[in-house]
Amino acid sequence: MVDLKRRGRTISLVPTMGYLHEGHLSLIRLAKQYADFVVVSIFVNPLQFGPTEDLDAYPRDLERDRELCGSEGVDAVFYPSVKEMFPPGRTVFVEEEVISRRLEGECRPGHFMGVLTVVAKLLNIIQPDSAVFGKKDVQQLALIAKMVADLNIPVEIVAGDTVREPDGLAMSSRNRYLSEDEREEALCLRRSLLEAERLFAGGERDATVINEAMKAVIEQVPGARTDYAAVIDPSDWSPCENASCGDIVAAAIRIGKTRLIDNIVLGD
Amino acid sequence: MVDLKRRGRTISLVPTMGYLHEGHLSLIRLAKQYADFVVVSIFVNPLQFGPTEDLDAYPRDLERDRELCGSEGVDAVFYPSVKEMFPPGRTVFVEEEVISRRLEGECRPGHFMGVLTVVAKLLNIIQPDSAVFGKKDVQQLALIAKMVADLNIPVEIVAGDTVREPDGLAMSSRNRYLSEDEREEALCLRRSLLEAERLFAGGERDATVINEAMKAVIEQVPGARTDYAAVIDPSDWSPCENASCGDIVAAAIRIGKTRLIDNIVLGD
Repeated sequence: MVDLKRRGRTISLVPTMGYLHEGHLSLIRLAKQYADFVVVSIFVNPLQFGPTEDLDAYPRDLERDRELCGSEGVDAVFYPSVKEMFPPGRTVFVEEEVISRRLEGECRPGHFMGVLTVVAKLLNIIQPDSAVFGKKDVQQLALIAKMVADLNIPVEIVAGDTVREPDGLAMSSRNRYLSEDEREEALCLRRSLLEAERLFAGGERDATVINEAMKAVIEQVPGARTDYAAVIDPSDWSPCENASCGDIVAAAIRIGKTRLIDNIVLGD
Repeated sequence: MVDLKRRGRTISLVPTMGYLHEGHLSLIRLAKQYADFVVVSIFVNPLQFGPTEDLDAYPRDLERDRELCGSEGVDAVFYPSVKEMFPPGRTVFVEEEVISRRLEGECRPGHFMGVLTVVAKLLNIIQPDSAVFGKKDVQQLALIAKMVADLNIPVEIVAGDTVREPDGLAMSSRNRYLSEDEREEALCLRRSLLEAERLFAGGERDATVINEAMKAVIEQVPGARTDYAAVIDPSDWSPCENASCGDIVAAAIRIGKTRLIDNIVLGD
């Protein structure tokens, strides 16, 4: 990689946990617009899974992923083992103390420490000029941008739009966990965001009213539970009292054992 | 810096808090052996000082430091302001959870978080091929090497020997705090390390005996207090029961309001 840079070529990294879908492929295509040489990393990062979460169940298909990367013209696939990334005796980590405590961080303690630590490692290993992350994981994206700024990591963070199924469900490797019925039920997540958007467009500014309306949409579905559904101030990720343009509406739900997240930006 | 690297030149960084003395200059000379281009950073890092510590009193003399760097053939001096390094709203830091809790970390909670975070930033800003640190701050050196390994930071960490005054006192910017009497009293620090070495060379292996003997040497001086004096296992920085070759003997004392540290390696 360093040799490529000495020759003046630019590198873009697309970090993934593999089991690639159209969302990842759109990030790869975006990376190609930013750099001569595109690296995709595939690593199911144990550090970002809680003890009761789906680390073992998380879907993996390296052969298929490598084929997809090949078809997209990816220049290198980096798929380290857990032992290579986290040899025994690891004691250093990257932590964030404000944004990481909210929403996903509240539901998944330690999750963002795991994300930031592994992303810092990947950036240091690959040394890309840019790195591309999806907006579906918008809190993760904000935290990575904050890490890069606060630690002066020499990389440009590029955000790729969320890719959705025709019926609006955001693409996610976890969608495969859903049964046919659950797949149908999962649409309440997207519907709750659209309800927030509709209320905001109609003039509603009271975030409590919007949040409650979102929960009501989700809880119309008997199998769905709300982890959170909230209008968020993107500067510090705190809950808003009054909704305004540019605020983020983020929601996380559980359908059976599957946890799904999605978000929109108000007035976007 | 990136342009220099594209041209195939190597960069070495010597991070300091300024008020340069012969110890720093020896690190600069070492850096010159490792790289074509030597950068000295001068930054009194507020993040590594506790609320009751000597941040404001810490000696500063940028003009003199720059002259000394000039005489040593340093290629660039980087002296950022606190505001440049830590703009308001900083929330990301680098943490270590084992070595950083011992000795200095026990006496100075948060100290090593501050050190690691600022060193990570400096390494990301300068992007050197190597960075040189002194062995007087041996626990800091171990932690920086651990951070570089655990986070895959692409830099070689080089360790420079401690430089001592003719009477054995390790050089330190904090020595200037000492009155004439205290300067004399401070020698008990070095004497305690030599006592440990003498006992070890004479066959003593019981670390408790060695530690107690060190404390006795320090406490012969009425004005001196022992923060710690211990034989340490360098693998995890835990206190040893049995001393062996390669173990570190580290001590920290207070003389009046001045805190001094020093160390030796057994059997070195």
